[in-house]
Amino acid sequence: MECGIVGASGYSGGELLRLLAPAERVRVVRVTANTSAGKPLASVHPSLRGAYTLDFEEFTPERFDGLDCVFIGLPSGEAMRVVPALQGRVGRIVDLGGDFRLADAAEYAAYYGRTHTAPALLGTAVYGLPELYRERIRTATFIANPGCYPTGALLGLLPALVHKLVRPEGIVITSMSGVSGAGRSSSVEMSFAEVNESIRAYRVGKHQHLPEIRSVLAAAAGVPVTLSFVPHLVPLTRGIYTTMHADLPAEVSAEDALQLYERYYAQEPFVRVRRDIPDIKAVAYTNYCDLTVTVDRATRKLVILTVIDNLVKGAAGQALQNMNIMFGYPERHLLQ
Amino acid sequence: MECGIVGASGYSGGELLRLLAPAERVRVVRVTANTSAGKPLASVHPSLRGAYTLDFEEFTPERFDGLDCVFIGLPSGEAMRVVPALQGRVGRIVDLGGDFRLADAAEYAAYYGRTHTAPALLGTAVYGLPELYRERIRTATFIANPGCYPTGALLGLLPALVHKLVRPEGIVITSMSGVSGAGRSSSVEMSFAEVNESIRAYRVGKHQHLPEIRSVLAAAAGVPVTLSFVPHLVPLTRGIYTTMHADLPAEVSAEDALQLYERYYAQEPFVRVRRDIPDIKAVAYTNYCDLTVTVDRATRKLVILTVIDNLVKGAAGQALQNMNIMFGYPERHLLQ
Amino acid sequence: MECGIVGASGYSGGELLRLLAPAERVRVVRVTANTSAGKPLASVHPSLRGAYTLDFEEFTPERFDGLDCVFIGLPSGEAMRVVPALQGRVGRIVDLGGDFRLADAAEYAAYYGRTHTAPALLGTAVYGLPELYRERIRTATFIANPGCYPTGALLGLLPALVHKLVRPEGIVITSMSGVSGAGRSSSVEMSFAEVNESIRAYRVGKHQHLPEIRSVLAAAAGVPVTLSFVPHLVPLTRGIYTTMHADLPAEVSAEDALQLYERYYAQEPFVRVRRDIPDIKAVAYTNYCDLTVTVDRATRKLVILTVIDNLVKGAAGQALQNMNIMFGYPERHLLQ
Amino acid sequence: MECGIVGASGYSGGELLRLLAPAERVRVVRVTANTSAGKPLASVHPSLRGAYTLDFEEFTPERFDGLDCVFIGLPSGEAMRVVPALQGRVGRIVDLGGDFRLADAAEYAAYYGRTHTAPALLGTAVYGLPELYRERIRTATFIANPGCYPTGALLGLLPALVHKLVRPEGIVITSMSGVSGAGRSSSVEMSFAEVNESIRAYRVGKHQHLPEIRSVLAAAAGVPVTLSFVPHLVPLTRGIYTTMHADLPAEVSAEDALQLYERYYAQEPFVRVRRDIPDIKAVAYTNYCDLTVTVDRATRKLVILTVIDNLVKGAAGQALQNMNIMFGYPERHLLQ
Repeated sequence: MECGIVGASGYSGGELLRLLAPAERVRVVRVTANTSAGKPLASVHPSLRGAYTLDFEEFTPERFDGLDCVFIGLPSGEAMRVVPALQGRVGRIVDLGGDFRLADAAEYAAYYGRTHTAPALLGTAVYGLPELYRERIRTATFIANPGCYPTGALLGLLPALVHKLVRPEGIVITSMSGVSGAGRSSSVEMSFAEVNESIRAYRVGKHQHLPEIRSVLAAAAGVPVTLSFVPHLVPLTRGIYTTMHADLPAEVSAEDALQLYERYYAQEPFVRVRRDIPDIKAVAYTNYCDLTVTVDRATRKLVILTVIDNLVKGAAGQALQNMNIMFGYPERHLLQ
Repeated sequence: MECGIVGASGYSGGELLRLLAPAERVRVVRVTANTSAGKPLASVHPSLRGAYTLDFEEFTPERFDGLDCVFIGLPSGEAMRVVPALQGRVGRIVDLGGDFRLADAAEYAAYYGRTHTAPALLGTAVYGLPELYRERIRTATFIANPGCYPTGALLGLLPALVHKLVRPEGIVITSMSGVSGAGRSSSVEMSFAEVNESIRAYRVGKHQHLPEIRSVLAAAAGVPVTLSFVPHLVPLTRGIYTTMHADLPAEVSAEDALQLYERYYAQEPFVRVRRDIPDIKAVAYTNYCDLTVTVDRATRKLVILTVIDNLVKGAAGQALQNMNIMFGYPERHLLQ
Repeated sequence: MECGIVGASGYSGGELLRLLAPAERVRVVRVTANTSAGKPLASVHPSLRGAYTLDFEEFTPERFDGLDCVFIGLPSGEAMRVVPALQGRVGRIVDLGGDFRLADAAEYAAYYGRTHTAPALLGTAVYGLPELYRERIRTATFIANPGCYPTGALLGLLPALVHKLVRPEGIVITSMSGVSGAGRSSSVEMSFAEVNESIRAYRVGKHQHLPEIRSVLAAAAGVPVTLSFVPHLVPLTRGIYTTMHADLPAEVSAEDALQLYERYYAQEPFVRVRRDIPDIKAVAYTNYCDLTVTVDRATRKLVILTVIDNLVKGAAGQALQNMNIMFGYPERHLLQ
Repeated sequence: MECGIVGASGYSGGELLRLLAPAERVRVVRVTANTSAGKPLASVHPSLRGAYTLDFEEFTPERFDGLDCVFIGLPSGEAMRVVPALQGRVGRIVDLGGDFRLADAAEYAAYYGRTHTAPALLGTAVYGLPELYRERIRTATFIANPGCYPTGALLGLLPALVHKLVRPEGIVITSMSGVSGAGRSSSVEMSFAEVNESIRAYRVGKHQHLPEIRSVLAAAAGVPVTLSFVPHLVPLTRGIYTTMHADLPAEVSAEDALQLYERYYAQEPFVRVRRDIPDIKAVAYTNYCDLTVTVDRATRKLVILTVIDNLVKGAAGQALQNMNIMFGYPERHLLQ
């Protein structure tokens, strides 16, 4: 099987390449990156010297003709120009950005701050969260790979909402993310001297992942959902910690809640329900989501804690998990 | 004026010494630390070489006879043996630990995991949060200096609760703390290789600062308060970020909420209400608490964000602010 | 093929387990760790939950009877008691610690601060640096896996010394290491709040890796070698940067020096000679040593810069590279 | 006394403002920063909200007319246009950048990569290292404040070279710097995700601080000096560690070397000769240089280790030390 990567010079693209390096059944034959076109792959990703001899090329749709699978690692706003050009030329498309995760053009414009240029394609991608849509993914030709924050939030909230353990209104999601989630950046705000020894919330109530979380939850629960989402930038490179609170309509024990989660995820290869408190270190460089739940009696809220590596389960690893499902490989193929 | 420090070898004690080094009106004449007794102060705090020529001594109450002010930087559980011995011998006592912040011996036992050995003294200390109790502090002889998490949480919640802007039930407090908050530590959990590139929640629903926050809020608001408190350990040395959600009983605009906070803190020297999002970097090595508030319309919750330096406003700086108030110095004396 | 790990609860052991997790030809069947005996492997290495179902056991030699390969991840000073007991029972032994890297009992005592209890075995292990001793490793039954600092220093100095490009006297080695090199630690010195935002040299002129570097160089160059070695602790988890200076007896151009290195390592799978300046990020989580050389004209010194991941090429990865060589697997088996 | 700061929006300018905030005898009355002109000082330095009510203005020489002292915090290449315009209008000038530290225009061009536009002024500034030139500083009107790396290197090497303890040829200087030394940066190379968990050398043999170190040493020692200087970027915000090796022409004991340094610096308020190994943490946020020396017998080299905070002793603190000397204040005024 042959695949290509559009926008391969960023962190998600680099992580895809790292995970695909030892592959025997999948070969990366084409990488494009307009700003690095003409340069060897290893000049941007020096850790991959020796693993690939490819050069970056400028993007043209023809370059990908006939490939079995194309991953798009472009920033949001660029994939919406690339996907229409690729459709029909390639077997499957997995977009790691946010352009095709929302179904509604107005919501896209409101949260992403730009008009969608391919509105007819909105709603046509399968949302690539295997724990929710594995069957649809199997036969999909176009996958919208979930955002990093949504992956951590959804895996934490889905069992409780689907089983009506918690109320769908007033959910509080507090997330702390490593800096690689912002992509390869040249802004002062992301410079080491600004981020190190600091923490700051950002885009409070306005983050583009908020409608993604809300709409996937609402679809899965079958009811409207309201939530507050506060993301924080924290001085580490990889990982997202998500701490959530949701109201319990009735008394429930922590043990019952835990068992509900354990049953829900019993067959999942990449979700580990823990009976102690998860930490990012345990999932770094892996495709796992670790999580636990407990009950706060005083406020009668379910407290849910999840961790992922934003570049793996939150991006490139989940993209490969989707590839594995689509192409009939074992789901752990290339993933730890 | 002459002062002393009991338990001066830890991070709070070191920070007190750093802040007191340039003082002209206050002289540190006595420092005790049982495990370092006999050693020069600079052998434990090498940054202070040149500023002090004191040696650590073993603690005996007599050593502090006649001093105007004694700060206690001992771990919780030790001050309750020291305070009774010091009372009557010294002018004022400021305990930076948790032994005298709760009024109830049963609650102390439940959250601190030990029996209080001086229960008669519980409730006799003035809680040293100047923004709430400045007048009582002025004449106090025994101050329980607030905990680091409580300082950040209380300064964020007090205006809203006192003015009944938010409901007192179901408050959610999510805090992220630097590692120095745990004190000088030799545990594997606090080692660099474990903390770096990781985040983890801990003592969820059981942290000893929970009843402290709850009781101070209830006293100030005049009603019972329920809250969920989830602290997280984050890879930085100094600073606490606290993100809070509380239910609004009625519609309120973000602007109105902001103005309420601006009025509430208009005269406070060390609280800065910001119209952008606060970050830890802006308060590091200062006695400031920066904060902002906004309204999440979807869930009708007030969202409150506060930052402090846990070693300054969350410990040694606030202790000096209390000293300044008690001794009639300008409140900014020695503090930035 | 079946293998076991003695001392599997530390960072080297954990890294071995991580690298071995996807193996199809090698099965880890036994892990011992006295302080964690009886506990599941995942309780100490939570990232490996799902990958292994083993429990730690207490060490007894019998437990390893008949295994093809046993890795020893014990701190120095413990392997010298374990190796004699294992010899004869198992196929091959790879000791990741320092007990069998020096040939001289007096030198061991001087630098490790203890008497060697198995002096008869000193000098019997093959020093497991494949770039120097690949042929001996192929048939070895007992490997002393190189130390982390020595790996970075030797790969940088060997070409120049073997080819007599530089003088063997007066070599200066300045190394900067991440904290995981010290092992899982509960000392105050290794706590996050002490290491973060700091750097410090340590064991200047006394580090136990000094005689290891010196003796391997002397053996390879066939002449005595003198060197100064100054290691520094730096706030990162993984990686060693080594900057070296050696006197050039005659004028040589940077280009000629580079080409000598390129030729020397042309066939090596895990050494990459770079024409730009190496950085740790490019080798993190890989078995590569990246390096470059240049000439300082003013002082007529060769300047050599090398980087490795101390847990991979500096420990567990190199141990697997040695296993691959001994068992006839491709050298890149399990390694990136 | 009234002062102003040209280029006050960078890290050096911010640190000057932080150190000057509690001043009673010095008032900052003017701050310029072209890219932030019109903005309040606190919008760029939020930690200083409350301490200053100044706005940034665009630079014009007239704005500084009559001020007693003007600090220049501009990047190298800009001060050479500003200084000629200010001379005659203001009492004293302290340039924190590199434009006036070298006396030779050709050397400036070679290392700074641009032609000097005020070559007539080269050599007219007093080099502001108080430990070397205190008397000249006292009466100076134009100070070239030393670079951060040179401060750490010079304080380490001067005693040995001045007293001919070491040979002036073949000195090796290996430095490790925190990221703030590069100034407020928007480059990908300085972004958190690139710097964190990595180390890299840069500008090997070409750094613009090399001729500064060399020429100051040569002038002080009275003989030509040759040295190799390799700076490294390390993941911390503040601090420089400098490890140096120099050849000893004759046997000398470590104790004798230490005593020579102790005598040399006996009267210096901001140099602390230590008998243990210095670490950055001990000088962070202070104006101290901590150092130690030892002898490596095997190579007969003196090993010198120094630490400074690059923003304090390496920039703003040293600038204030120079101001104190020029204006007759106690040298510790405003400095710890």
